[in-house]
Amino acid sequence: MISLAGGIPAPDLIDTEGLEAATFRAVESARNATYQYGLTEGELFLREEIASRMVAQGISAEPDHILVTSGSQQALDIVARAFLDEGDSVLVEEPTYLAALQVFNMAGAKTLVFQGDQYGIDFTRLESLVANNRIKLMYLVPNFSNPTGTTLRLPERTKLVEFAIRHDIMIVEDDPYGDLRYDGEHVASLFEIAEQSFNSKNRVIYISSFSKTVAPGLRLGWCIPPESYFHSLCRAKQSMDLHSSTLSQYTAGYYLKSGRLDGRLQLLKKAYKCRRDALIKAISEHLPDALELNVPDGGMFLWGRFANGLDASLVLQQALSHHVMFVPGKYFYCEIPDLSSVRLSFSTITPSLADEAVKRLAIAIQRTEQRETQG
Amino acid sequence: MISLAGGIPAPDLIDTEGLEAATFRAVESARNATYQYGLTEGELFLREEIASRMVAQGISAEPDHILVTSGSQQALDIVARAFLDEGDSVLVEEPTYLAALQVFNMAGAKTLVFQGDQYGIDFTRLESLVANNRIKLMYLVPNFSNPTGTTLRLPERTKLVEFAIRHDIMIVEDDPYGDLRYDGEHVASLFEIAEQSFNSKNRVIYISSFSKTVAPGLRLGWCIPPESYFHSLCRAKQSMDLHSSTLSQYTAGYYLKSGRLDGRLQLLKKAYKCRRDALIKAISEHLPDALELNVPDGGMFLWGRFANGLDASLVLQQALSHHVMFVPGKYFYCEIPDLSSVRLSFSTITPSLADEAVKRLAIAIQRTEQRETQG
Repeated sequence: MISLAGGIPAPDLIDTEGLEAATFRAVESARNATYQYGLTEGELFLREEIASRMVAQGISAEPDHILVTSGSQQALDIVARAFLDEGDSVLVEEPTYLAALQVFNMAGAKTLVFQGDQYGIDFTRLESLVANNRIKLMYLVPNFSNPTGTTLRLPERTKLVEFAIRHDIMIVEDDPYGDLRYDGEHVASLFEIAEQSFNSKNRVIYISSFSKTVAPGLRLGWCIPPESYFHSLCRAKQSMDLHSSTLSQYTAGYYLKSGRLDGRLQLLKKAYKCRRDALIKAISEHLPDALELNVPDGGMFLWGRFANGLDASLVLQQALSHHVMFVPGKYFYCEIPDLSSVRLSFSTITPSLADEAVKRLAIAIQRTEQRETQG
Repeated sequence: MISLAGGIPAPDLIDTEGLEAATFRAVESARNATYQYGLTEGELFLREEIASRMVAQGISAEPDHILVTSGSQQALDIVARAFLDEGDSVLVEEPTYLAALQVFNMAGAKTLVFQGDQYGIDFTRLESLVANNRIKLMYLVPNFSNPTGTTLRLPERTKLVEFAIRHDIMIVEDDPYGDLRYDGEHVASLFEIAEQSFNSKNRVIYISSFSKTVAPGLRLGWCIPPESYFHSLCRAKQSMDLHSSTLSQYTAGYYLKSGRLDGRLQLLKKAYKCRRDALIKAISEHLPDALELNVPDGGMFLWGRFANGLDASLVLQQALSHHVMFVPGKYFYCEIPDLSSVRLSFSTITPSLADEAVKRLAIAIQRTEQRETQG
């Protein structure tokens, strides 16, 4: 089976050697502390390393206001639990990250959708949603979003921040892919825009993760909330799991301290760009008219649409029997799904696999079209 | 500061050497898998090790029905989220584990209290609570409870299981201290009683943890729910943190596989028994009339009551200025707290410290009494 379905970092690109050295160092240097209870907000040692990376990216962050979480998934869950009551609403892009929707639903909140891609945002719709609902949060993946791979442009970011300030809505900026840009220029984060352009330190909760860049198995992410919310988020974290694995935290801390991450990011970006391009090339060769694509500047995902309204779920059935898989895009919608949409992950598809993957996909599409015609 | 406050395993008794070897083995044997995404329910390798320990304790558990969690704290949170809706009620012992109360409160549930100690249970009260409330769960720490150190006797356990079956209430059996019995005989778990005596496999969710026996910093616990609830608990876990740290899981798995835990438990039990006895001896010498004590058969806690209704919070104020601390018992109550009650943890108090700790406590009590008399 060739999988274009996962959202996982390439196993062959995980810096196993560097991580092993970091784990050894964690065990040898930290000794007992590695296995004992730690602070709810996370080990200071790790928070300092995260803070200095954040500051380098334009996000002012004191170690004392960074909350280490068990992956960005838990950061989302903490935010949802601290902010949302039954009947509250959350603004989300359509389509958006599936597991975020699950978290908001589990918190009893309603999700209201808006289009948030690089082609602009419908602010008229946003204003009418705000007028008719009790909206507490706005959730965004502004860089190389999952599933669409799109990146929100600076003017849209600025307008969204202004909108959120005007309507007293907290922005949740989920940024697991921000370090994986391999084309184009860095766009300032919503967190930075709120501070720099609007002098507002109270508007954005920034969330990120080591899962796409260092190692998912450590289950470590972090969130940087406005200072006034820090303690209530810590209390939520405490009742959820007391704190995140100390062994994982020391490993991540020593890995960052080793200075290997920047080199690894260069390597990851080069490899992912190459994989993206190989997949696009294979699609243009074998599926010249069957699949319209968004081409992302970073991250792990191609987002596409089968021509002639072909149902991606039916294509998937055929694809599975030809040993290739992907995710139909419909799962990422809250309201009316585009049944022809599809998410293709290229992170684990080496260039030599891409051709074979797309050939199989082409057969699956052909079979689906034949069946549809017969039906 | 001498702390009788913590509920932490003794740092000097953590098997650092064995854990380091297990971590090294995890890194060397599992390589890439140690750092990659894993299964939501936990690594099979670890679930097999847990299952075989559980079976040896009379708890029938298939690896496929064990959910690995980020500490028992997360297991509680998962259960609360999967079972409780706003307005539901949970039966809890009074006093009980503070962080469990926080979890139930965060889930919007009401906690209803009953006395659940070794002296018997007021079933008349339980019946009247059931008649007037929508009760979903009953939460218990049956072995060496936190805070009181008491253990529920077999007849009471059996009656409680019968009661829960009759009223369709799910029992949450929280058992982090069960392995730390150093006096008396093992009492069958509620899980085992439900299966063996009532042929009911659907009544008890068993929860335990490696935090008191192996290493808290790994943040690993597990729960064994009835089979029919397994998938809904997994879904909750998935939206909370996807899965627990793979590095921690492999470390725990290799540690169990090394066979060192049973020897370590013998050592822990011997040391804790000795620490308990030294603290009791010091109390009988320096506070012969000032503190009435429960003497537990295991675990980490002495529970007591200051004579003459002395307020434990006032004693604590004096104690802190004499560099000794403990937890006033009032924090473990939902309803009417016993202000004179106190929890003394002996796990980190070596016999040579016990005398000094209690001398300081005696001065604090004396000062408090003097102030009360003056006031």
